[in-house]
Amino acid sequence: MSTSEFSIIKEFFTVESADGFPPVVGVGDDCAILDVPANKQLAVSADTLVEGVHFLPNSNPELLGQKVLAVNLSDLAAMGATPAWVSLAITMPAIDKAWLSSFSKGFFSLANKHQLHLIGGDTTRGPLSITINIMGLLPTKKRLLRSGAQVGDQIFVSGSIGSAGLGLKKASSGGTDLSDADISAYLNPISRVDLGQCLLNVATSCIDISDGLSADLNHILKASGVGATLIHEKLPVTMSVRNHCKEIDDELWPYATGDDYELCFTLPKNMRIDALDGLTPDCVTKIGEIEEVIGLRIKMPDGKQVELNKGFDHFYVD
Amino acid sequence: MSTSEFSIIKEFFTVESADGFPPVVGVGDDCAILDVPANKQLAVSADTLVEGVHFLPNSNPELLGQKVLAVNLSDLAAMGATPAWVSLAITMPAIDKAWLSSFSKGFFSLANKHQLHLIGGDTTRGPLSITINIMGLLPTKKRLLRSGAQVGDQIFVSGSIGSAGLGLKKASSGGTDLSDADISAYLNPISRVDLGQCLLNVATSCIDISDGLSADLNHILKASGVGATLIHEKLPVTMSVRNHCKEIDDELWPYATGDDYELCFTLPKNMRIDALDGLTPDCVTKIGEIEEVIGLRIKMPDGKQVELNKGFDHFYVD
Repeated sequence: MSTSEFSIIKEFFTVESADGFPPVVGVGDDCAILDVPANKQLAVSADTLVEGVHFLPNSNPELLGQKVLAVNLSDLAAMGATPAWVSLAITMPAIDKAWLSSFSKGFFSLANKHQLHLIGGDTTRGPLSITINIMGLLPTKKRLLRSGAQVGDQIFVSGSIGSAGLGLKKASSGGTDLSDADISAYLNPISRVDLGQCLLNVATSCIDISDGLSADLNHILKASGVGATLIHEKLPVTMSVRNHCKEIDDELWPYATGDDYELCFTLPKNMRIDALDGLTPDCVTKIGEIEEVIGLRIKMPDGKQVELNKGFDHFYVD
Repeated sequence: MSTSEFSIIKEFFTVESADGFPPVVGVGDDCAILDVPANKQLAVSADTLVEGVHFLPNSNPELLGQKVLAVNLSDLAAMGATPAWVSLAITMPAIDKAWLSSFSKGFFSLANKHQLHLIGGDTTRGPLSITINIMGLLPTKKRLLRSGAQVGDQIFVSGSIGSAGLGLKKASSGGTDLSDADISAYLNPISRVDLGQCLLNVATSCIDISDGLSADLNHILKASGVGATLIHEKLPVTMSVRNHCKEIDDELWPYATGDDYELCFTLPKNMRIDALDGLTPDCVTKIGEIEEVIGLRIKMPDGKQVELNKGFDHFYVD
């Protein structure tokens, strides 16, 4: 094979743009050089996606290119940060130019939408996996943490819950039709970057729901030293997720499915969600309240309460 | 398995220190938050190491923890940057606490030496590989690039060349004795962070030799639009590397071996290396000169010249 790592990076991943925050030095040297504007802090997150664990074998590379970036944008969204720079490490069994071209197309379609600059790349030989390191900017001392939830705060989620989990089931059985909302939620998730920025001055805590609502809300509860009760009837689920829960006779299923990439956040007790600037209120739903008693409880329609302290964990999966 | 991603990160990779540049928010939220000091720019690099490609199966995890960091520190060294922050994404088949504990020990022994803060981690299930994203600081507008070499410049390398390549051969045959200089160069490389910083105001170009001297010097030559001739007798090689070249009857072997992690750099024509502040001159060797005619030539002891435009490439290896 005659294509070297260096030329792969150059061929597929050198795109220059004047939008956003162009790097001082971009792809192609030992390091990229970046200028962080005055009065800004840097938000940084890294995520790895492995074939067969985080995405299905033989996934459509264009959708995969979008999704690996969306997953990482979701971490910036959960912090309230503005996307700025990203680096991309691809490990693949052998160079497949058609695959790289398609992956790159999907990746840049989303990167360009967010004025995100690719600042570095590494291509290595091995089983297919992708690690992204994403960097965003925050006004100094402003950020959305997991640790600020207060007793009495209202708990919200964006979008609907469980759709990506159901989409994974459908895609695992060969489903690829993106007009199916569940399959689309799994293969082509939206990251809530605008919502995160809009919450920056008002939310007391925030997390993105990558490992399931119960697991991720539990991170907020633990970091904040509080508990919560959710009202099961308030949980936003689509009709198809509702039907799936009936089929498998498990009403609590949506709380533990991964890959939603929606935001879960808390607002002070009396704050009205429809009064927030820049927010489309119908994309968020109030689902419960923060309480003093630790643990996560779900209040079911029959008045019973269940404790729910587990979620999706990539190391649980067989 | 009951250990979640979250608790792995907490158990093995949460170390707080007041040295260097502590993060504003470290491991444990959706993103880390970093403050880049005024008058500094950020240098960023990412590298993936895959078991069976970049390191041998069943490698000693403590040495591996050091090496993956050393490889990335070497990219900062080549830029002249001061190490500040690092994130670590580990993909492994199943959680192995003994392995993680040992890997973490090696990783932090080197991180602490450079006052480097771990700011994020991701642990995922899959074939063993490690991706590091490293960040360093540079005085605004000062940096070592590949593109500044000028006709007449002197070409230098640090350390000795080919030792790590020979170490790989020995380690592949089961060698683990770190008192063997070649094995040590392969399993426990030094990164030339101090040298890089010392060259920041004076070198016209710099690169780290990860893919072999000929491949990496060719990157400098291409980026700078120049050529070079090296004097073969000047190449710093150990006696064991010299003997290996005789055994395999290939004098040019050291130019194409990977993993040296030494620096190759150029200095203006009349600059004396022994006049540079903070530099130990005996760790660097002048090996040739930059010329106008493009291409990389080696002048052999018999007066013949050979062209050498290839190097080690992870995608070439079978």
